Amino acid sequence: MKEVAIGVDIGGTNTIAGIVDRSGNILARVCFSTVKGNHSIEDYFETLSKNVNGLYGQANEEFSVKGMGIGAPDGNYYSGNIENAANLPWKGTIKVIELCRKYFAFPAVLTNDANAAAIGEMIYGGAIGMKDFIVITIGTGLGSGIVVNGQLLLGSDSFAGEMGHTVIDENGRLCGCGMHGCLETYVSATGIRRTVWELMAKYNIPSAFDDITFSELSAKQISEAAERGDKIALEAFEYTGRILGRKIAEAIAYFSPQAVFLYGGLALAGELILKPVRLSAEKNTLQNFKNKVKILPSAIPESGAAILGAAALVWKEFE
Amino acid sequence: MKEVAIGVDIGGTNTIAGIVDRSGNILARVCFSTVKGNHSIEDYFETLSKNVNGLYGQANEEFSVKGMGIGAPDGNYYSGNIENAANLPWKGTIKVIELCRKYFAFPAVLTNDANAAAIGEMIYGGAIGMKDFIVITIGTGLGSGIVVNGQLLLGSDSFAGEMGHTVIDENGRLCGCGMHGCLETYVSATGIRRTVWELMAKYNIPSAFDDITFSELSAKQISEAAERGDKIALEAFEYTGRILGRKIAEAIAYFSPQAVFLYGGLALAGELILKPVRLSAEKNTLQNFKNKVKILPSAIPESGAAILGAAALVWKEFE
Repeated sequence: MKEVAIGVDIGGTNTIAGIVDRSGNILARVCFSTVKGNHSIEDYFETLSKNVNGLYGQANEEFSVKGMGIGAPDGNYYSGNIENAANLPWKGTIKVIELCRKYFAFPAVLTNDANAAAIGEMIYGGAIGMKDFIVITIGTGLGSGIVVNGQLLLGSDSFAGEMGHTVIDENGRLCGCGMHGCLETYVSATGIRRTVWELMAKYNIPSAFDDITFSELSAKQISEAAERGDKIALEAFEYTGRILGRKIAEAIAYFSPQAVFLYGGLALAGELILKPVRLSAEKNTLQNFKNKVKILPSAIPESGAAILGAAALVWKEFE
Repeated sequence: MKEVAIGVDIGGTNTIAGIVDRSGNILARVCFSTVKGNHSIEDYFETLSKNVNGLYGQANEEFSVKGMGIGAPDGNYYSGNIENAANLPWKGTIKVIELCRKYFAFPAVLTNDANAAAIGEMIYGGAIGMKDFIVITIGTGLGSGIVVNGQLLLGSDSFAGEMGHTVIDENGRLCGCGMHGCLETYVSATGIRRTVWELMAKYNIPSAFDDITFSELSAKQISEAAERGDKIALEAFEYTGRILGRKIAEAIAYFSPQAVFLYGGLALAGELILKPVRLSAEKNTLQNFKNKVKILPSAIPESGAAILGAAALVWKEFE
């Protein structure tokens, strides 16, 4: 019988779950509100279990479930808990793996979303066959999943890979974490919006953003404006890419990876971001590493990325 | 019979070799010129083999040799070669492990000196029992040996751990590598000398360095002056420690280690350097990591450090 994995991505707004086979075909999928009606974490697991059971009927073939992979903000691989997640409605320690044992008959594995993206890239994406690579996830914030010698870099407590909170400039932008100049204050959907505002203040020239509020502005609008040749938007991508490239050069010096993959919102802007990233990474890289490390967009199809990343954990962990 | 390892540290000036047992006792040791009389690499291996054979007679007990560990600048673990080492007299690719097979009857393993220091710390030093830690070696330059889940981080080509060439300030000091603002231009024996000169220029106040040339100045003189309360020297340590602390906070965000060890010349200045390092690392560290990661001086006795690090490779590799 065909073996499949259940992939579950717990987001602050929605949870996405799906059944995925070893080749990355999504046989069934569902999306439901993480928050609505789920006052306690037990309520949430009731909802999750109902939705996962509902998936079985959707698939057109017989299968056996190998396990469940869960990607979640602040998911701790070692403890199996989500700990103090700022973006989830339940506070303190959520004993995810313990709850999975109660609600599901198959084994489960948990990690944070950036790590799930890295394993997704390794099992289903552009990193197949690679043992050393980095996936940088660029969304509202910036995360990184780092694979070293074929294994996820977790560190002593599963919190390794906090690239978003390595510092560009200690007198720089205030970060939500309380520090100044963290990478994600520059390179993220929010970061590039801050850059647009900074450039509008600097140049005071007509731009696509003159009649938009900060709250309304999205990274997608900035990339559309750049494609139309808007100067502020073009320079915002240039600036963002230059900073990310410097940081990638730094990560290359630490890790000497085969490739660095960019995943998520900003990465979809294609050459607008990739070109300045590659130039700046190459410029700031030691001779030893020059022309060696590929910087690529994620090869995971965007529509199923979260499900595929979470499902991939199962093959990595239980196969 | 007692098993021992031969540890060989190939330096630009001298080679140090010794016989070391599993507990870290150095049963015999020798030091000879790397350069003198060794015009070709074959000449060098003749000299090395004579010196290693000479060690056997020195030891007071019977033993069998488990293997030879070699630490060398630009030593590549994967290829077994030293590649384009700036500080060694032989150019191009030196096939170290191949030559070892010709000259010695036991297996040999090669890596760079910072990696050897990290394995030394794990087998004989303060990292016994640790699976995730970083050793920062501070000498003429700055190197790092990074252990992840019990294994040396080598990366795709054995060149991982180039922390000395991660950048503090892209408009900063010119580095020997051609880039600007590399960590080792600030934090190294040379780096702190540059800082002293910069501070003398900035303040123009009487200091211990008014009658010393740049060539004469050593890191040891700076730490002696600081202990006597010299303002320039004290601020030089403060400044150096602050920069190193920021970079350690960065490495903590990437790796989430249990501890960071400082090894080599500058680390011997004790609290002069450790205090500002710890303050600055703590200040620049994410909430998640605060008060968790120990920053410690290496626990390897300085006198035998290079031999112990190289010998430790043998137990890590062949045991």
